[in-house]
Amino acid sequence: MEEKWFARLQEIYPELVSFRRDLHMYPELSFQEENTAKKVADKLASFGIEVQTGVGGMGVVGLLRGGKPGKTVALRADFDALPIQDEKEVPYKSRIPGVMHACGHDIHTSGLLGVAQVLSEFRDELPGNVVFLHQFAEELPPGGAKAMVEAGCLEGVDVVYGAHVASELPVGIVGIGHGYITAAADSFEIVLYGKGGHGAYPHTSVDPIVLGSQVVMNLQQIASRQVDPLKQVVLSVCSFVGGGEAFNVIPDQVRLKGTVRTYDEEVRVAVEQSLKRIVEASCQAVGATCEIMYQRGYPASWNDETETPLLVAEANRIFGEERVLKIPPGMGGEDFAYFAQERPATFFMVGGRNPEIQATYPHHHPKFDVDERSMIQTGQLFIAALLAYQARHQ
Amino acid sequence: MEEKWFARLQEIYPELVSFRRDLHMYPELSFQEENTAKKVADKLASFGIEVQTGVGGMGVVGLLRGGKPGKTVALRADFDALPIQDEKEVPYKSRIPGVMHACGHDIHTSGLLGVAQVLSEFRDELPGNVVFLHQFAEELPPGGAKAMVEAGCLEGVDVVYGAHVASELPVGIVGIGHGYITAAADSFEIVLYGKGGHGAYPHTSVDPIVLGSQVVMNLQQIASRQVDPLKQVVLSVCSFVGGGEAFNVIPDQVRLKGTVRTYDEEVRVAVEQSLKRIVEASCQAVGATCEIMYQRGYPASWNDETETPLLVAEANRIFGEERVLKIPPGMGGEDFAYFAQERPATFFMVGGRNPEIQATYPHHHPKFDVDERSMIQTGQLFIAALLAYQARHQ
Amino acid sequence: MEEKWFARLQEIYPELVSFRRDLHMYPELSFQEENTAKKVADKLASFGIEVQTGVGGMGVVGLLRGGKPGKTVALRADFDALPIQDEKEVPYKSRIPGVMHACGHDIHTSGLLGVAQVLSEFRDELPGNVVFLHQFAEELPPGGAKAMVEAGCLEGVDVVYGAHVASELPVGIVGIGHGYITAAADSFEIVLYGKGGHGAYPHTSVDPIVLGSQVVMNLQQIASRQVDPLKQVVLSVCSFVGGGEAFNVIPDQVRLKGTVRTYDEEVRVAVEQSLKRIVEASCQAVGATCEIMYQRGYPASWNDETETPLLVAEANRIFGEERVLKIPPGMGGEDFAYFAQERPATFFMVGGRNPEIQATYPHHHPKFDVDERSMIQTGQLFIAALLAYQARHQ
Amino acid sequence: MEEKWFARLQEIYPELVSFRRDLHMYPELSFQEENTAKKVADKLASFGIEVQTGVGGMGVVGLLRGGKPGKTVALRADFDALPIQDEKEVPYKSRIPGVMHACGHDIHTSGLLGVAQVLSEFRDELPGNVVFLHQFAEELPPGGAKAMVEAGCLEGVDVVYGAHVASELPVGIVGIGHGYITAAADSFEIVLYGKGGHGAYPHTSVDPIVLGSQVVMNLQQIASRQVDPLKQVVLSVCSFVGGGEAFNVIPDQVRLKGTVRTYDEEVRVAVEQSLKRIVEASCQAVGATCEIMYQRGYPASWNDETETPLLVAEANRIFGEERVLKIPPGMGGEDFAYFAQERPATFFMVGGRNPEIQATYPHHHPKFDVDERSMIQTGQLFIAALLAYQARHQ
Repeated sequence: MEEKWFARLQEIYPELVSFRRDLHMYPELSFQEENTAKKVADKLASFGIEVQTGVGGMGVVGLLRGGKPGKTVALRADFDALPIQDEKEVPYKSRIPGVMHACGHDIHTSGLLGVAQVLSEFRDELPGNVVFLHQFAEELPPGGAKAMVEAGCLEGVDVVYGAHVASELPVGIVGIGHGYITAAADSFEIVLYGKGGHGAYPHTSVDPIVLGSQVVMNLQQIASRQVDPLKQVVLSVCSFVGGGEAFNVIPDQVRLKGTVRTYDEEVRVAVEQSLKRIVEASCQAVGATCEIMYQRGYPASWNDETETPLLVAEANRIFGEERVLKIPPGMGGEDFAYFAQERPATFFMVGGRNPEIQATYPHHHPKFDVDERSMIQTGQLFIAALLAYQARHQ
Repeated sequence: MEEKWFARLQEIYPELVSFRRDLHMYPELSFQEENTAKKVADKLASFGIEVQTGVGGMGVVGLLRGGKPGKTVALRADFDALPIQDEKEVPYKSRIPGVMHACGHDIHTSGLLGVAQVLSEFRDELPGNVVFLHQFAEELPPGGAKAMVEAGCLEGVDVVYGAHVASELPVGIVGIGHGYITAAADSFEIVLYGKGGHGAYPHTSVDPIVLGSQVVMNLQQIASRQVDPLKQVVLSVCSFVGGGEAFNVIPDQVRLKGTVRTYDEEVRVAVEQSLKRIVEASCQAVGATCEIMYQRGYPASWNDETETPLLVAEANRIFGEERVLKIPPGMGGEDFAYFAQERPATFFMVGGRNPEIQATYPHHHPKFDVDERSMIQTGQLFIAALLAYQARHQ
Repeated sequence: MEEKWFARLQEIYPELVSFRRDLHMYPELSFQEENTAKKVADKLASFGIEVQTGVGGMGVVGLLRGGKPGKTVALRADFDALPIQDEKEVPYKSRIPGVMHACGHDIHTSGLLGVAQVLSEFRDELPGNVVFLHQFAEELPPGGAKAMVEAGCLEGVDVVYGAHVASELPVGIVGIGHGYITAAADSFEIVLYGKGGHGAYPHTSVDPIVLGSQVVMNLQQIASRQVDPLKQVVLSVCSFVGGGEAFNVIPDQVRLKGTVRTYDEEVRVAVEQSLKRIVEASCQAVGATCEIMYQRGYPASWNDETETPLLVAEANRIFGEERVLKIPPGMGGEDFAYFAQERPATFFMVGGRNPEIQATYPHHHPKFDVDERSMIQTGQLFIAALLAYQARHQ
Repeated sequence: MEEKWFARLQEIYPELVSFRRDLHMYPELSFQEENTAKKVADKLASFGIEVQTGVGGMGVVGLLRGGKPGKTVALRADFDALPIQDEKEVPYKSRIPGVMHACGHDIHTSGLLGVAQVLSEFRDELPGNVVFLHQFAEELPPGGAKAMVEAGCLEGVDVVYGAHVASELPVGIVGIGHGYITAAADSFEIVLYGKGGHGAYPHTSVDPIVLGSQVVMNLQQIASRQVDPLKQVVLSVCSFVGGGEAFNVIPDQVRLKGTVRTYDEEVRVAVEQSLKRIVEASCQAVGATCEIMYQRGYPASWNDETETPLLVAEANRIFGEERVLKIPPGMGGEDFAYFAQERPATFFMVGGRNPEIQATYPHHHPKFDVDERSMIQTGQLFIAALLAYQARHQ
């Protein structure tokens, strides 16, 4: 069965490329993916798949009912683009000034539509149901995943698979992480309001530079003292700006910016609270005031401990062990996390790097591109995972 | 004798005003006072005073030999202007765009020339000699005083008196400080070179923001632990700039700027050494490097403990006690300090504030002006101090 | 085969208890286990096992050659006691004042001898060889394991299994950790030599209390900045003593003590270096000196990622899944780590808690005891693991 | 007049020595000077001086009315001893075990009684009145001076003079300070309550050692940032004790002790407040609590700026300029400060060092002694100051 389906996927590859290039030429920013959503919905409908649009915003959800009994497996692809000017020289270069598919979401979408087409053609043999989660706005918090979950897109779903193309992995290679695969990436901005004055008369001022230094030093103990050493946390103050050109004027205020990375939600909550408490108390100690803006990013994404080894086994089988890497947790954000919070889920990386076609630039680079054959590997592993899952639950 | 001399000073007041206004209209920047120096030299020569020009640069030194035996007393006035655009609306407004006598040095110069004229007219009765120190470049370190001293302007001199008009003191009031009257005002700039990186991976970087914070905290102990509590020191870090807009990029470097104020020269040297040692060791502790630029300003200026009470006594006598203030040490710099390092010296402030003529702006303000009658008080106190000094040393 | 062997183990249980109680009554301290070693060697010899004594010190190593071909499996038990006065009221209470088997090493030894007896009785059916590692001095660094490894006790060995009874786990339960199971537990002592003086004259002293505080603050960044957030580290300063009763005497020195816990050996080395660099540089910054004593404890012990899941599978099979716990890494030290550094190895915990017989006290408590039936579970899992390992490598 | 009086003082010197040695043999601790007070009162009464006893506690106040009109001048001497075992080998060694005049108060008392005798003998010629302030309990805060002032001992008094013998100044030398001569010497004790735990699990504890270090670092800014650099402050943490022998147990609490020295009362109040605010906020930042005990010592003592130069002039006149030192402010406490808060007052030091008689030990040393001739200098300067004061106010 699998072989036949893989062969069909290979056959329709030129159509996938063509669809992907159309998306690439007409990218749409997060939360504004009107035409993209319509194209996706039309395509799904053309396969005879039941389509729901406007799910949680711009989301498109397809439901394919298989001809045999089984579980319901969801497959997810995101479809938004980035506010970056395309600087590649290729025929399918973005036609929209300042907007570009610079992260590969066009690849995800087309790849998943390929799977949808194949599965719909063989629906009589298909065990269980497949839900196609075409998600909007992955790039811009609060993202689209949360809203789609809240709109009920996971009702009846038993397991979720997702994938991301990676320009740093060679095409043909698949990378799979265990446990936490992305961190919760929060950011903060702190303004410390002291009282400016002449550098020669510090007692007439409330020195925000000493205060800021104290805050930075005191924040170190969140990682060193307050978080379980077996859990993970990073708190980096990445910007400290107070005063300017003058050598002898104590400034009025200091501005700190930074990032917090955690996996565990309890740790995340505790770090935010502790950061606020330390900053506020440090101000109180010297009669200063402050403003603290803490912006939560996506939560950490968890690769299910049962499903993930099984996905690895499938990948080993179809690609060969030497083409399957175990990858460490990353610190980037991915709102697939919201699906993974609700259902057993696994997310994998698919290599797209190919120096021969200049597909070597990092994600979000104006010259970013990937080898389109990564859509084949993505589709194959989706199909294999789905069939293995159904087989286990017969 | 004194009364006659004071009366003569009063008589020539209009000429002083006229000379002052000429200087005011044609100000010259520090180290560029060619015409000003010439005017001063001509004037001194016209009184029959022996004149030396080009002393240490643009300095002009006059020597008046009195008809009676005595000591040699030096009187000092500075004559440079500032790079400020004059915004006053007066007939004698600066004719030179962007240059202005915004600190009153024109007043000092004309006042001292008035004294020179009076003394030269009464030279037969004058005990001892008088040296007129017309100094260039007080506003711009390294200043003119040091070079004039090195050029020998104090040879044979027994005591030095100096004065400064003050727009914050009402005209008619004289202010005199005891001991240190200005601080040594040094400045520093420190660049801490860490190693930038992604905020989520601090271990791949050498974080210059934590390092800078540590440096700021550790520098506090110079004042709190290392300097004799009976001596004075201020070390203010007035600027701390590292990182920019990004929330999640650990920057490569941090730049600190600040000022050090001390009175005692030993303390000053020790503070500079300790600052360097603390910064360098803090870098060493985490594998960072640094660049430290330490710029010495003028030294602290010391009002001689014997001469100053005697000057106060003279001021009390001629102006009345209620017109003589004891003023605390200031933190501003004044290169009169170099004269005071070499000889017993006293420096006093003469009120120039007068709301009726809008003479209320702070020094260095584009609308700065002072009551010209302050030249009278300055001249009177110079004359009284001089006579009293000679009287004590008969 | 296994069933027959387990039955025989059960049959000889009374002898194991008797041997264990003898050890319990006559405990010997680390490095002084002369009689214990002799008893163990005699016992092994009585089973017809080849015995080597004095291995690396007091170690006893038995070699049992099986009647069938196979790999060589090592089983390890430690046999030293602790300098603790036994306060239990039981007939087998320690007869040696101030020395006690308060950690269960007597149980380990007797349990392993039971395995040795059973295997020797069935040696004809036994595939491969079994090496019995009876180790001295586990309680006292540098421990006995390292010396035994250096003396060659692992020559020819393919895999090592070890076990520890646990009074906090109920009898009948087995706990198995994955990856790192114990941390490298190092300790340090730092003396900071400043210069004492009167509290009113800080400038005549080098204040070791401010210095010590700075050191403590600066050490926090080892965990917060310098170690990969995906790896683990704890650095705790647990003692800070400087000055005494006097309110106004700056002391000469401050003494800091603390502990460092790591898993990764590279991290461990880097932390030690960084600690030293930070302390030394902090001293340099203020003209102080220091002495740093850094004492390495046992390394972290690693449960092999291939063997451990297989051991878990065996445990699940013979005890039932509900009796097998996955346990998190601990921070205690165990010199089994030295065996695990050389060979694939797995270490498991065997429950010994039983409130009915007052076996509830923590390890190293004067009333510590465990349920002796834990010897059965230990023996069973050793046998099952051994057979499974040989089966996999036929 | 003065010469005759000085001669008489010289004549009665043997009696002063004898009285002093009696006091020395029978010293009494602060607040327990029953016999001493009686002896002093009897002596004053024997001179025909009006005596008041029990003033503010054990204080004795004598009033001598002069035969001529004038002001009322108070002269002060303290009479308490210290809880120190006398280790000198002299005939007049203390007969009271563990109690000793180890600070020279016996000298002060006898010297002042000598003045009382002389003045009473010449009372007809004496202008104005003299109040003899024989004070109890100078060594033990809250001291006796405050209570005596509250009891009215300064009613009608115009000026107060006091003296202290000094074993570090050679006999024959007098030392006089200007402005502040002693600091306000306060002490504090801070207990920081965290939460203890195992050093390997810092997240389960609230680490009081990091907290204490933070507190120490943050307190440095009181001196470096918050107090006018022209005023004086010392804040020394002299004791930091947390944890003990264990390397791996985070303690429950840390105890800090230290001293605060200030001159200006406003600064003193501000420092106490800031200390409390910093400690409390630092605790709040990490969820700890604290106890702060702040003990005020004597206030700073101020030598009147009018009277002091006049005293110096008298000292120069009667001893010669080379025997009169200007001494810097000290940091020790002296409750003469309470008299100086109420009236113009001057306090001077009288040399008592003499190696020939082993009078070289520091104050409070078990072998402390001074040259008794210091009573003569003390008496002479009291008399000269008194007469000069009266002369100025005729």
